[in-house]
Amino acid sequence: MIIQPILDLVAICAKKGIENAILSPGSRCAPLTLAFTRHPDIHSRTISDERSAAFIALGMAQQLGQPVVLVCTSGSAALNYCPAIAEAYFQRVPLLILTADRPPEWIDQWDGQTIYQEEVFGKHVKKSFRFPDSFSNEEQIWQAGRIANEAINLAKQFPAGPVHINIPLREPFYPTEGEKFEFPEHPREFTPVSSHSQLTEESLKHIKNRLADVRRLLIVPGQQRPNAQLQKLLDQLAAKQKAVIVTDTISNLQSEQTITLQDHWLGNEGLHAELEPDLVISFGQSVISKSLKQFLRKSQASHWHIQQDGQSRDTYQHLTRILACAPTGFLAWLGENLPSQDDDFFETWKNLEQKTGETLPAIFESSDFGEYPALHFLLKKIPAASKLHLANSMAVRYVNFLGKREQEIICNRGTSGIDGSNSTAVGCTFTTKDPVTLITGDMAFFYDRNAFWHNYTIPNLRIIILNNHAGGIFRLIDGPAKQPELEEFFETKQKLTAKHLATEFGFFYSKVINQEELEASLKDFYEPGLHPKILEIETSSPKNAEILKEVKEKIKAGIQQKK
Amino acid sequence: MIIQPILDLVAICAKKGIENAILSPGSRCAPLTLAFTRHPDIHSRTISDERSAAFIALGMAQQLGQPVVLVCTSGSAALNYCPAIAEAYFQRVPLLILTADRPPEWIDQWDGQTIYQEEVFGKHVKKSFRFPDSFSNEEQIWQAGRIANEAINLAKQFPAGPVHINIPLREPFYPTEGEKFEFPEHPREFTPVSSHSQLTEESLKHIKNRLADVRRLLIVPGQQRPNAQLQKLLDQLAAKQKAVIVTDTISNLQSEQTITLQDHWLGNEGLHAELEPDLVISFGQSVISKSLKQFLRKSQASHWHIQQDGQSRDTYQHLTRILACAPTGFLAWLGENLPSQDDDFFETWKNLEQKTGETLPAIFESSDFGEYPALHFLLKKIPAASKLHLANSMAVRYVNFLGKREQEIICNRGTSGIDGSNSTAVGCTFTTKDPVTLITGDMAFFYDRNAFWHNYTIPNLRIIILNNHAGGIFRLIDGPAKQPELEEFFETKQKLTAKHLATEFGFFYSKVINQEELEASLKDFYEPGLHPKILEIETSSPKNAEILKEVKEKIKAGIQQKK
Repeated sequence: MIIQPILDLVAICAKKGIENAILSPGSRCAPLTLAFTRHPDIHSRTISDERSAAFIALGMAQQLGQPVVLVCTSGSAALNYCPAIAEAYFQRVPLLILTADRPPEWIDQWDGQTIYQEEVFGKHVKKSFRFPDSFSNEEQIWQAGRIANEAINLAKQFPAGPVHINIPLREPFYPTEGEKFEFPEHPREFTPVSSHSQLTEESLKHIKNRLADVRRLLIVPGQQRPNAQLQKLLDQLAAKQKAVIVTDTISNLQSEQTITLQDHWLGNEGLHAELEPDLVISFGQSVISKSLKQFLRKSQASHWHIQQDGQSRDTYQHLTRILACAPTGFLAWLGENLPSQDDDFFETWKNLEQKTGETLPAIFESSDFGEYPALHFLLKKIPAASKLHLANSMAVRYVNFLGKREQEIICNRGTSGIDGSNSTAVGCTFTTKDPVTLITGDMAFFYDRNAFWHNYTIPNLRIIILNNHAGGIFRLIDGPAKQPELEEFFETKQKLTAKHLATEFGFFYSKVINQEELEASLKDFYEPGLHPKILEIETSSPKNAEILKEVKEKIKAGIQQKK
Repeated sequence: MIIQPILDLVAICAKKGIENAILSPGSRCAPLTLAFTRHPDIHSRTISDERSAAFIALGMAQQLGQPVVLVCTSGSAALNYCPAIAEAYFQRVPLLILTADRPPEWIDQWDGQTIYQEEVFGKHVKKSFRFPDSFSNEEQIWQAGRIANEAINLAKQFPAGPVHINIPLREPFYPTEGEKFEFPEHPREFTPVSSHSQLTEESLKHIKNRLADVRRLLIVPGQQRPNAQLQKLLDQLAAKQKAVIVTDTISNLQSEQTITLQDHWLGNEGLHAELEPDLVISFGQSVISKSLKQFLRKSQASHWHIQQDGQSRDTYQHLTRILACAPTGFLAWLGENLPSQDDDFFETWKNLEQKTGETLPAIFESSDFGEYPALHFLLKKIPAASKLHLANSMAVRYVNFLGKREQEIICNRGTSGIDGSNSTAVGCTFTTKDPVTLITGDMAFFYDRNAFWHNYTIPNLRIIILNNHAGGIFRLIDGPAKQPELEEFFETKQKLTAKHLATEFGFFYSKVINQEELEASLKDFYEPGLHPKILEIETSSPKNAEILKEVKEKIKAGIQQKK
């Protein structure tokens, strides 16, 4: 039987700009599956492992800036979505999650594939709706259409995020012979008209007064997508007013004008006095660098955070103002109203950046082979016009150490899990023909291997695996490194290489264990091909720990020497 | 720094009979990891993919009848536990879930690896506790010990299930030099003394009166573990009083005295009148057979459910009494108080069972090769003293069609998901030296392939994969089979075989595509070896659908012919 409100729901999705759905197979969700696959304006793909399906949807929605639909059947299917949904919630990525359910009368009656699906995502969705379970009167049909509109509006509204609709469905799930799918041409739609929040004249006057005393302004952008307008405004603030802009790799706002190598020396408390700002302005989401966070927490400077809904977190423990407006508008105003900043302050930061930038290549030149020098070398070989997805744990940290990148940087820093990096990168390849490079560790890579278990081609995917046969990060932390349990219970040594996986899924594969092999392998790594390519860099975990320590010491010495 | 209440928690676990912990690596959970691995009476294993880790713990706890501990770090790790926890909740398997968390002051402040962990498992745990986050006064230490006791007591108490303790932890996570782990010899412990619920004399008198009129009693045990005492009582009720005992394979109560092949003819409405009971008594959890459920829902008979906490579900829509006592006690009483039942009624059921049992072998004898006849053949080759884990979807259905088994049957029928069958079977192998056979489909097998991603030997595991390169079940249902989307969006055709996976993990592997190869492969399949063995049976999905239909028709004809 065709359930018309389901077709209306799908038509409303299309009308509101949704173009992609990731479906997972099931019987209960058949009415949704058929409606999505048959809608002419929505591209549906099917992914069997719901954990991967949800991260793939996340990877698409990150790039598209539009909600991607997830559809799954009743039972534990929805629970496999949980990790990606929390990531989307904290990373502010719009998703519309449609979970098919048994009708309410059959919940908790020991019937198959039934769990408690209402509100199942807890606080990790912006809202959870319950779709009507029957349509015997007009008001239920009105409710269904209203829920579809509300849910999609909410998913998109700042801060964007995942929204859930639980959809109870009764048999029969399939159209009877002769029934035809007819999508409404003009489904009822309501959408907020575009608006933005801006500071009042009076607030700006106060702020301007306050800024009159500021001489050591530090601007810290958190995670966000590349934004040419923001980049230009920040570069001007640095060039003209000498504001110090400290940028993590995930800010996607690194330039010649910004500080990018702070992780090498912010841990050095001896330098803190000369680096101390008198005001910190931030916007966007999280930053990676623990030493930056600790530096700002120890600092006595006030902290202003720009966020258009007027909410904020007190990440640096000195939050004093929340500026409820868009960063671009405020930074443009700042460009015209910020007095020139202290030269010495600016030069201190700049000098450290420059010295570190000059010292690094020589250090890697003479270093043994390991994941850190290998990354330093290979990052230069990645095409500028491409996407670079970094897995959590060491991959994103190394790249952050290594400073400015041309590529768009993507990383799941909402929850900082290793659980869906492969799938998120696969989702990204569904949205672009540019190369998508995933840099990952062996633990993150094997954790999410079901990312590749589907029938869609992803020829533009390139995977670089830093395989040290363990969670090497634990050897780099002082605590676990000293415990006898290090290898079994922290690093969790594992002996796999990606070779068999590559054969299984038909990926190109090469493994390198030294610099010569690395150089040879990179020669045609970005040549177009019909299949994804894996480059596995096998290194030793103790050696990597040694190199990291050595680099740290040499940078420290370099900075002291040149002082 | 050593946190003594964490050591106390672990000591209380040991004192209360917990012998196993499954840990997943992380930094925040290090104090838990170290305490569990260093406790002399608890065996800790580490599993990197938390989804598999939780199903492995489930597979162990199912067998041990004792809670198994799960430990994970903060962030999305806990969310990967969700599918297994819901399964444990509905299947009533005790688990103690310990999730390390950031301390409360750092929740929701854009710091790394932080989600909303309190109550994160929603309604799918019996209770969620919050461990104290500091121990500056005695009452907090008292609270910590109390929570440990309450949580473990609750996990074990009928109906058993998962219980969660969220544990906020502050740095430093590691012992400083010279600090020693000292577990208390006599941690504070409180445990309910053993008790049981029984019906009052008066209730029994009423029930006896009511039974005086019963002539067509049907007893339907739901899912449970094997129980020799129950088996004996049921067999006696059938032999002496001619009660009809209808048993699914997951009841683990099938015998010569019970009906086991009902799925072949309960769908046949023409037979319902002669099969109609006047009372249905059930106990245990769910049944698999949809036709049994539909038969009982259509029946006009009253339904009594035996459950010691006096709760029940109205699975058959005719629940009239709930008997708050243990099934063994009530069935023993029934053996002495039930009048003899109607001969014709008993014989009708018995005859159908017998005819079906006689017809089946001949049908398979002449059938083409496919998963159904292959299973019919190979089930006879599985050692009697062993465990048989069945994946959801078709594996458990086929085995249910094929009647009585000697082995203990294990199947995740709490939520009936395909998401953790491999891991649950792996967990089972950690508890026994007997062979553990997993019969699974290709979708379930590849879904949960991370079950094998660890360093523990599981030489007694045997895996039989019914690989039809798709979710073949969808071709067996009338609805999807007729849709043009069948192959891409329902079956989700997939081309993998287990060969590469077997090579990767060092498993023995053989693939068979016909009866001769199957027979040859089975010859030494159960010979002991150092590694698990995979037997992959490759069949065609359309052929399997054809065979299933053919068997159904032949059984129907056989029953009519012999009437």
